[in-house]
Formats: sequence, structure tokens, C-alpha cells
Amino acid sequence: MTAFTRSGGRAADQLRPVRITRGFTIHAEGSVLIEFGQTRVLCTASVEERVPPHKRGSGEGWVTAEYGMLPRATHTRSDREAARGKQSGRTQEIQRLIGRSMRAVFDLAALGERTIHLDCDVLQADGGTRTAAITGAFVAAQDAVNKLLAAGTLAATPIRSHVAAISVGIVGGTPLLDLEYTEDSACDTDMNVVMTGAGHFVEVQGTAEGAAFSRDEMNLLLGLAEKGIGELIVLQQQSLLAK
Amino acid sequence: MTAFTRSGGRAADQLRPVRITRGFTIHAEGSVLIEFGQTRVLCTASVEERVPPHKRGSGEGWVTAEYGMLPRATHTRSDREAARGKQSGRTQEIQRLIGRSMRAVFDLAALGERTIHLDCDVLQADGGTRTAAITGAFVAAQDAVNKLLAAGTLAATPIRSHVAAISVGIVGGTPLLDLEYTEDSACDTDMNVVMTGAGHFVEVQGTAEGAAFSRDEMNLLLGLAEKGIGELIVLQQQSLLAK
Amino acid sequence: MTAFTRSGGRAADQLRPVRITRGFTIHAEGSVLIEFGQTRVLCTASVEERVPPHKRGSGEGWVTAEYGMLPRATHTRSDREAARGKQSGRTQEIQRLIGRSMRAVFDLAALGERTIHLDCDVLQADGGTRTAAITGAFVAAQDAVNKLLAAGTLAATPIRSHVAAISVGIVGGTPLLDLEYTEDSACDTDMNVVMTGAGHFVEVQGTAEGAAFSRDEMNLLLGLAEKGIGELIVLQQQSLLAK
Amino acid sequence: MTAFTRSGGRAADQLRPVRITRGFTIHAEGSVLIEFGQTRVLCTASVEERVPPHKRGSGEGWVTAEYGMLPRATHTRSDREAARGKQSGRTQEIQRLIGRSMRAVFDLAALGERTIHLDCDVLQADGGTRTAAITGAFVAAQDAVNKLLAAGTLAATPIRSHVAAISVGIVGGTPLLDLEYTEDSACDTDMNVVMTGAGHFVEVQGTAEGAAFSRDEMNLLLGLAEKGIGELIVLQQQSLLAK
Amino acid sequence: MTAFTRSGGRAADQLRPVRITRGFTIHAEGSVLIEFGQTRVLCTASVEERVPPHKRGSGEGWVTAEYGMLPRATHTRSDREAARGKQSGRTQEIQRLIGRSMRAVFDLAALGERTIHLDCDVLQADGGTRTAAITGAFVAAQDAVNKLLAAGTLAATPIRSHVAAISVGIVGGTPLLDLEYTEDSACDTDMNVVMTGAGHFVEVQGTAEGAAFSRDEMNLLLGLAEKGIGELIVLQQQSLLAK
Amino acid sequence: MTAFTRSGGRAADQLRPVRITRGFTIHAEGSVLIEFGQTRVLCTASVEERVPPHKRGSGEGWVTAEYGMLPRATHTRSDREAARGKQSGRTQEIQRLIGRSMRAVFDLAALGERTIHLDCDVLQADGGTRTAAITGAFVAAQDAVNKLLAAGTLAATPIRSHVAAISVGIVGGTPLLDLEYTEDSACDTDMNVVMTGAGHFVEVQGTAEGAAFSRDEMNLLLGLAEKGIGELIVLQQQSLLAK
Repeated sequence: MTAFTRSGGRAADQLRPVRITRGFTIHAEGSVLIEFGQTRVLCTASVEERVPPHKRGSGEGWVTAEYGMLPRATHTRSDREAARGKQSGRTQEIQRLIGRSMRAVFDLAALGERTIHLDCDVLQADGGTRTAAITGAFVAAQDAVNKLLAAGTLAATPIRSHVAAISVGIVGGTPLLDLEYTEDSACDTDMNVVMTGAGHFVEVQGTAEGAAFSRDEMNLLLGLAEKGIGELIVLQQQSLLAK
Repeated sequence: MTAFTRSGGRAADQLRPVRITRGFTIHAEGSVLIEFGQTRVLCTASVEERVPPHKRGSGEGWVTAEYGMLPRATHTRSDREAARGKQSGRTQEIQRLIGRSMRAVFDLAALGERTIHLDCDVLQADGGTRTAAITGAFVAAQDAVNKLLAAGTLAATPIRSHVAAISVGIVGGTPLLDLEYTEDSACDTDMNVVMTGAGHFVEVQGTAEGAAFSRDEMNLLLGLAEKGIGELIVLQQQSLLAK
Repeated sequence: MTAFTRSGGRAADQLRPVRITRGFTIHAEGSVLIEFGQTRVLCTASVEERVPPHKRGSGEGWVTAEYGMLPRATHTRSDREAARGKQSGRTQEIQRLIGRSMRAVFDLAALGERTIHLDCDVLQADGGTRTAAITGAFVAAQDAVNKLLAAGTLAATPIRSHVAAISVGIVGGTPLLDLEYTEDSACDTDMNVVMTGAGHFVEVQGTAEGAAFSRDEMNLLLGLAEKGIGELIVLQQQSLLAK
Repeated sequence: MTAFTRSGGRAADQLRPVRITRGFTIHAEGSVLIEFGQTRVLCTASVEERVPPHKRGSGEGWVTAEYGMLPRATHTRSDREAARGKQSGRTQEIQRLIGRSMRAVFDLAALGERTIHLDCDVLQADGGTRTAAITGAFVAAQDAVNKLLAAGTLAATPIRSHVAAISVGIVGGTPLLDLEYTEDSACDTDMNVVMTGAGHFVEVQGTAEGAAFSRDEMNLLLGLAEKGIGELIVLQQQSLLAK
Repeated sequence: MTAFTRSGGRAADQLRPVRITRGFTIHAEGSVLIEFGQTRVLCTASVEERVPPHKRGSGEGWVTAEYGMLPRATHTRSDREAARGKQSGRTQEIQRLIGRSMRAVFDLAALGERTIHLDCDVLQADGGTRTAAITGAFVAAQDAVNKLLAAGTLAATPIRSHVAAISVGIVGGTPLLDLEYTEDSACDTDMNVVMTGAGHFVEVQGTAEGAAFSRDEMNLLLGLAEKGIGELIVLQQQSLLAK
Repeated sequence: MTAFTRSGGRAADQLRPVRITRGFTIHAEGSVLIEFGQTRVLCTASVEERVPPHKRGSGEGWVTAEYGMLPRATHTRSDREAARGKQSGRTQEIQRLIGRSMRAVFDLAALGERTIHLDCDVLQADGGTRTAAITGAFVAAQDAVNKLLAAGTLAATPIRSHVAAISVGIVGGTPLLDLEYTEDSACDTDMNVVMTGAGHFVEVQGTAEGAAFSRDEMNLLLGLAEKGIGELIVLQQQSLLAK
């Protein structure tokens, strides 16, 4: 891996400083502020004692996610989706990704006929909002499940594994872990990877924004992602042990 | 004023602890987290170098506001307005109120043909979100104007006075300042008052939710509001002096 | 109060000619055309034998209002809200105000599990459409209730008091009662006041459109409103006695 | 034609009492209340000094119509289209019909690059609202054109002929002119016919709601419609001569 | 009838080549590609074992239609209605027409509490898409009914007669059968006629786009339509006999 | 690779029969019906001589895609998106994928300030609609570019490489190429891969629907995709050589 100057002298295979603040707000069953450097996402988990129509009477629960970005989370203000009257394609794509990622580690039958809503709202954006959202939403979901276990509502946990996510990309020929906004804008290839605590892939979404990428480049990127996600899962575990 | 037990032993004419954190996020020209007790609203001010159609060519600027509430800012989760595809009547009413309140202290000609967008997003709600939003949005707007002055874009400030807001109400016969959620739910009369630094009224919105209120009760409420807003304006000033 | 020339030589504290025509259309349980000078609003009351979801099984009824303006009720044509696909913030704010005002004088338990819908449609606008709507809607609601009493559906009236509304404002330094469009456009402060037959306040909504207003000015305006609403309630009573 | 008992002893080939009130509201360039028995439609014509995109730069004007029904114009209350957020298929079909009918008698080049908006709002419905709307809209359009001629904005009239409309139908085997609501509900075949002052057809829309209809029945219906429209055009002329 | 040159040397009273391909797609209970010359419409019939709310518990079924046009079915690309977020007035008018035409030959009681959805999607347009859609939808509906009969779900057919449709119009003074796009654009009068196998009218929709039309012209057009629809019904029968 | 029984005796690494029919409709600049077994997608390319706002004045063109599915393209009828008033998240995700894939092989500067719209409409679905759409859209885009070259509008081709796509997945432990609907429903891992003619990746989207997948499984899937896409590109070339 060649030398490349990143902000704060970060190495190519180094995560930004990650902070996970549990209990950030008081009402939700799980409430986590997750920070990947300057990217800050508030993830709340809300438990609802009913399921959407396609699960009614199935004995199974549901886990779903919504994603939003405050209008001035970004460098220039974007329109408020509630005011425009619809969510963008990008927003829908991201919230579908978060939902699938969470469901990949949930045993819906063990959850019972209830829904966990994960709301991921970006307070400040600097690249990697969707991967921060997935990583933080898992912690919020775990807190909510812990409340259900403590209350005796659930006898056993429906969570089968950790799940976390990171972005990787090739910028100026160099594979980088955890892209910031300026890196993301400049990159040729951008890949979001979601993995479980067992080291398996849940989602791999790679996009060549400039030149298409080779099989070798893909392998380098997957390797970087495995390293980063491994570190994120340790951080999730440490955060959940605290308090 | 009769005795009445409020949370934290607060007196009937006492504000909740108010905290104003400037520079809460990094991208916006003004970014303020304001807390009235457990109510927390993020207010950002964004400057845009153009005006809406009704002001084009007028030589005047525009100041406008949008309001939102994160789905789990409240005790139980509410639907996301972006997902439902429209803003509720309540949301629209509040953002129109914030916008009028800000414009009441702005000299739009002195602002020039540019727009200040104030985005007020409730991270956590415990009553009084609209009054916290107005009080915080003023500080964010002042920060944005200071940047325009420092950059030489504006030669003189277009802000003519402070503006701040508080709720007052009658709960069980007792007039109270700065209602929390549980007080707000129980009150007979609820009034939101917006005043300038000069002690004049910008908006008075009183609603009898239970029994209608008399002229005498109204006078008591207005007196309480004057007291509270005076204190809020001192807090705004102190916050703006810092740093 | 200083001298001020109003259209038709009206005094500063004088209402426009008010006309209340009951039975203006034939299908509705209550149908009232109310005129405040050139402002003409058709208010119908429709009884529906069911309630919205939040009242189901509560034993209580509901009273709600909708407001609309014909596209050419005004000097220049405005877009039709049905064609634009949404109601403006102003429309929603007004219909929420009318609904709250009506519910302030209704005993919802005594109404039983049924809904009264009040539709207020402005045929011609010249200022004061929301206050005319409230004043007329009360008469329509009373007619609908009278039909329910006559049919034996209700044993006792759920209406506890009259309710009526008027606008007041300060134009060129002079407090005026019942603003016409040209006065409303020119005014510094505009206040809509809703009161019961017992002389208590249901809603007070004051807005400084130009200069903020003092406590003394507010007192003058409230006094004017009390006088005007007292007269409107007499007119409601006379109208309901007829036929 | 066999005997048939209609309300008010009306003959099978007789129109309901028709009343045309010009100047019903004050702001619009043309404002007509038209009544076909209990059906009452307010038709306003608004002149706008610009044209929609497809006519810009063409030297031609445009004539267009919108149609609405107040929620309680009918026996039972219907949803307000502005609140539902869209116009029904029926509403769109009717307003397209009114617009085409008006354009059929307008010389758009002679109108110049301006638009006449015809708003037809049903205050009370008892069958035949679309035909009343067309018949009344013509009078409103003529009044608006007369204002443009009087002001010298137009040198010559762009109106080439009268236009009026009536419904006909077969109820219980009897062809009837100008169906009321109860007749319309019971009829096998319903036809709306629009004709010019010269006795030519602009629109014929026949629908078999029960049994399909024969060529002979169609001929009877067209004959009835010709008779009724002839009478309506005389009434339009008389109304326009007055005042 | 005067001489007139049509594409392919077609006579004024001659249909374009009509092709009916049954079983065009595999999933639907009925699936028909119908071609009127270059106009190609895919009509599918889908059976659903439930009815819309207004028919629940009535013992009757429902037959309904939807219509769409692929964005590049036409000479220049039109916006996709799903992307714009609403169906045009034209689309709604056409799908209501198709639905009424189908219901005119269905005995809804004999159908039982189930719905037949007819989806008519225009793959390529060259005039007459709505009449092709009606003619093809009948064949698809018949195929779906035949499946229900074969499966024993229905004991007797709910279809009482054939139904088919054609356009007629006057172009340059000449009455023409089955208008192509270039003829349709040039025509003074355009009429769509829907008839049953028994030779009765279900719908007649005539519109004067240029000059209004006389009673004699109308008679000529109806005669042409009768001839064309007779031929279409023979083609429907031949197609249904095949395979 | 273990034995696995697929429909038609297809091998695990074998494509379904692929058919590419150019010129399927007559109006579009490119019009291709592509079939992957029973999956049939109509792809049209429309050239528009202007660009969306974000490209105006840039000297660059734009390539964009829309995707739709006829209501009865599937086993059971789905709602029509135009009638529901919005496109689903799935639809938006797919059309964004198609658009990015096409832009990956286009030199937008060489295209000049014009837009190519690719409309991909699924007539019949049996798995793999998005990969068929990408593969077919490329051929339609090439046909449209060839027309621009032939007309002299473009001097050199803006297309830098072929692009095609295929799905791969693991079903019951066996990696399979080009999944049919029944395989797709049963699979644990589903991956859509888009590659250029040069054998580089444009998009890789892998999703674990059941168990998460290992790095080894990912490598097997990528190998299968490379094989399949290589074959598809040969088929594109053969199709483009014909006629």
C-alpha cells in the first residue's frame, strides 16, 4: 500500500476516531450517538408491540429502519424531505440497506410479534453516514433487546450476532478504509461492506464512480473492510459492556 | 400565586435550566443546541445568496424557518413526516410562527437579497419545543449575521432587536411559566408568547384547551411571560458574548 | 381613540354590517351564509354517526372543521388547493383554529359517538374570513344540534355556550375593530380573538406584522374585541330565534 | 312520449326552472350563479395576462376550466379533494369537458396571449352539475370578454358562438330532458350534450349505465337535447341583455 | 363518401389490419396483445378473490380497468406517470371508460364476490389506443372467465355479450373509420364508440376539436362505427375459437 | 460444484436462453426486447437535445434510466405505481443502478449537451429483471448512438465499452448463475454483478438473505458472474452486428 496523506495523518487502513454514546436521548428504548470522525448519526431503537400486515399472525416479529439527514448536516443546505413531500431514492436505498443488515442478525421468530424501528438521523455528515448508521443502530437495537430481556418480555435474545459496516474505496490508486467526504468525492471506486461478528458478509455494495475496478482491487478492498469491521465490532462490544 | 409542586422543586414563575451551546455542528453558518430542561432543539442558520420568487428584484432579503421532530424525540414514536409524504398541520403552524418571529426583528432591506434559513429540529421533546426553537434560532441567526459582517458581506447588522419566546399556562388554577410536557398535557390554558429585547410583543397565541380564560388570567399569564422572556434574553446575550 | 376614516364612514370600534342567513343550502343539517360586509362564508354542519379512530370506543364525539377558499374569492385568482394537491399552511392553521374554537363550547361526552363536520368555504373575501367562519359555524352547529334534539337522537344539548370571533388591529396607530382587507394589509398588529358567550377567551392570536406591540396596545385591542364579540353573539341569538 | 311523473309536475321534455344571476361575487371579471332547479353552481371567469407554456410565443390565448364541489353540496358529505390531496377522476373528466366546450366557441388567436380561467364550484347539487357549469361558464366568460372590450384591451370579440349543455336520459323507458339527481340515479342511459348557438354539436357523451341503448333511442335523446339547449341559449341571451 | 388517401391505400370505411394474440404473457389469467395497425396494446386480465369496499358483502363482483402508456410508446418521450407521482386526467378518463365498457356486458351478481382487473398498457401508439384497449380487454376478460369456468369456480358465464370499440372522425370533410395518429391530429371531429355484440351502444363520446358537427355528420359517423365494431366482434370471436 | 437440478436441465453455471430483439418498437431511437428465459424487458433509448439542470452549460451530456414493471408481469398482480402515486424503494434502487451502470461506459463530454433516457419496462418477470434491463439497455443505447453518428450529430462515439449484468446466488449450498424466480426466492445469497467489456467491475451488489456468506463463497460467485457476463457481451456484439 503506497503512502497517502489523509486528514489528521490517518493511515490508509485506519478508521477515523469512533465514539459510541449510549443513552443519548431519554425516551427511546435504545438511543445511540455514533461518531465516525466528524460524521455524527443519532440511532434510536423503538419497540412497538405489533407488526406490519405481512407479518400478522405469523408469530414472527419485524425489524425495520428509517434514515434521514437534517437539512444542514451537509456543507450546503439540502431541501427537507418532509417539505418536498417525498424521500429521495438515495434515502430509500439507504434505509432499505440498514433494515436488511439488522434483519440479517435477528431471529424474527425469537423476537415474537413485535417491531423494532431503527431511526437513523444524520446530525452532521462527513462521509460514511450509512455505515455509521448500521454500526450505531446495532448498539441501539441491542439496548432495546436488553430492556425486553430485563423486563421478562423476552426469555432469550433474538440477536444472533453483531453486525457493523464500513466504507472502503480507491482514491488516486490507493485503497483506503473509512472514507471521509473529500475522499468519497474523489474516489474511483466506493464500496460499502456489512459484516457479522462471525466475519461473514451481509452486504457488499461496490460502485465504480470513475474507472471500473479489477478483481484484484476488489480483493484488496474486501480485506480492508474485514479489518475495519473487526475493529468496529470490538468497539461495539466495549460500549455495550460499559455502564 | 398559590403553591404548586413542579418537577425539581421549580417555582411557578421559574424557567427550567436553559443551556445554549453554540457551534454544535460544523457546517452551518450558525448552529445552536438549545435546551429547556429535557427539551433539546438543534437550530441551524444557513445563508443562501438568493431569495424566493416573491422577493426577487426587491432589494430585500428573506428569513424563513422549517421545523421538524425526530420520530423518537417523544415518549412514543411518531411517523416520520418525510415517509408519510407531508408535514402535519402542527408542523406547518410552528414553522410559520418561527419564521414570522425572526422576521419581526430583521430589517430585510439591510439584509440584502439573500435568505437565512433557520432549521429547528427537535432531538428530544418535553414541552415547549416551539419556544425553545425561537429562542435558539435567534442565536443561530445572530451567529450567521456575525459571519456576514466579519466577511464584509454586510456592512451593518440587519438585526434590530433580540427575540425570544416562552410558554405559560394555567394548570389546576395556578399560572405557570415554561410548561413541561406533563404540565402542558394537564393545562386548561396554554399560551405561547414571543417578545423582543425591547419588551414588546411579537406574537401572543393563547388557547383554552379546557375552560375558557378570563381577562384577569390573561394578564397574569402575560406578566409571567414578560418575566421569563426577559431572563431568556439575558441568557442569549451571555451566550453570544462567550468565545 | 383618534379619528380615522374607514370605508362607509364606519367608526373605529364598529363592526361591518353582519348578515346571517340560515338554511342557505338544503342538504346539510346546518347551513349558514355569514357576511361580514363583503366577506361571505358558507358554513355547513354535517352530522356523521361515527368518530375518528382516536375517539372510537370512548363514548365521546368529535367536532372538526375544514376551511377552503374558492379560487376567485379574492382580488386575484389563487391556485385551487385540490389541483395543487395540498392545503397551504395558512388553510391548515385556520381550520385547526375553527375546530378548536368549536370544541371549546362542546361537551363531547354529551354529543355521544358521532362527529359534526363544519365546512367553511369562502365565497368572497374581504378580510376576516376566519372570524366570520367561526361565528357562522357556531350557528350551523347549533342548527345541526337542534335537528338531533328534535329527532330525539340527543336528549340534551352538548353545546355549553355561544362562541364567536372577531379581528382587531392597529392601523396607523389607531386600534380598529373588524378589519377589512385593505386595513388588514396596512396594519402593524393583527389579532384574532375568539370568545364564549360568557365573555371568556377561547383563543387569542396576535401577530405584529410591522412594529411589535406594547402591553397597553394589547389591552386596547382586547377591549375592542370584547365589545365586538358581544355584539356578534347577540346577532347569533337573534338569528337562531328567527323561524 | 309516454306520461311520466316528475317532481313539480314537470313534463318529460321540460327544463327545470333556470336562473342566471350575473355579478354574484365582486372580484372576478365574470361571476355567475346558475341554478337548474336545486342545482346551484358558481361560475367565475378570471383573466390572466399570460398563457401556459404550450401557448407561449404562439400569439394565441387559452381558455381553461376547473371544477369543484363543496363537501356538503350533496346529500351526504364527501371528502374535500384539497384535504385528500388529489382530484378524483370524475372531477378531472368534468373540468376537461368544460374547458373543451368553452374553447370550441373561442377564437384563441383573437383572444391574444392571455388566459381565461373558468372556475365552476357546485354550492348545491341535484343532478346536472356539469351541464349547468358549462351553461353558466359561458355567461361568465362573455362578461369577462365584455370587460376586455370595454377597456379596449380587445378590439373584437374572440367569442364565435354561444355554447350551452344539458343532460338527457332514459328512465323506465321514457326519454327525459334535464335529469334531477333521483332520475339520474335511476336511469338506464345518461347523455350529456353540448351545443353551440348555431345548433351544432360540440360534445356528445352517452353512457349506458344499465342496458345498452339503440340507435333509435339515441335519436330521441339528441332531439330532446337540441330542444333544451335551444331554450338555454335564449336564457343566456336574455341574461346578458339585462343591466 | 369522397375519395381520400389514407396510409396503405386504406378505404375511408376500412379498419387497419387488426391482430389479436392471446396468451402473450404467461402469468395473467388472460393476456392479449391487440394491434390496430401500428397501435399495440397489451391487455391482461387478473382475477382477485375479493372486491373493493363498496361491493363487500353485496354478493356481487367488480370489473375494473387501469390504463398506461410506456414513456416511449409515442413519437416523443413523455414523462412516466409513476415518476411524476400522478396519473394524468387523460389516463383516468380512459381507464374509467374501459371499466364502464367492460361492466356493461358483465353480470356482476353472476361473477360472485371477486374482481377482474384489466390492465391495458400501450407498448406502441399510433391512434386509437383506448378503442384497441377495450376490444382487447374483452378477449382477455373472456379468457379469464373461461379459466374460472374450467376450474368450476364459476358455474355459468357472467358475460352477457361481446363489447368492442372503434374511433371515427371527420378529416377534411371526409368521415373516416379507425383513425391513425396523423388523422386524429388533423381531424375536426373525433368520436369513440363502444358497442355490444347485440349492436347496441354502451358509450358514445364525440368531441368537436375544430368545427362543431351537425346531426347529419353524427349519423354518418355512427354508421361507420357500427360497421367497424361489427367487424371487430367477428375478429374477437375468431380469436377466441382458435387454440 | 455439486449437481443441482434446474428447470430445463440447465447447468449451475449456464445462462438461460437469451434473446435480444432490436427494433421491437418503432418510435424510439433504440428499442430492444431482451429475454432471459421467461423474463422479458422492453428497453428503449430516447435522445433529448437538452440536459437536466445540474449539467446545463457544462458541455457534458447525461444518461439516465427509469424502470417499471407492468402490474401483471408477475405471478400475482401488484399495484400500478402510477396509480399509487409513487415509485417503490425497490424501483428507485433499480433505476439508479441501471443509470450508474450506463454512465460507467459513457464519455459524457463526448456525448455533448444531450440526454439519453433509457426506459426499461418489464413485460414478464421470472427473476433477473434488473440484469436483463442493464444488458438490454446497453444495446438500445448503442442503437441510439449509432443513429446520432449516422446523422452526423456526433462525430465520434461516446461509448467506451460494453456493459452487461447478471445475477448469481447460492441456493442450497450450490452457487448458481442467472437465477430464475423460484431460485431467487429460495437463495441464501443473491448477488448482482455489472461488468464492462474489458472485464472490470462496475457494480457488485451482494445481499445475504438467509445466512451471511464467506469470502470463499464470494469468490465463487464473482467467478460465475465473470463467465456469464462474458457470454452476454458476445451476445450483445452478435446482436449489434445483425442487420
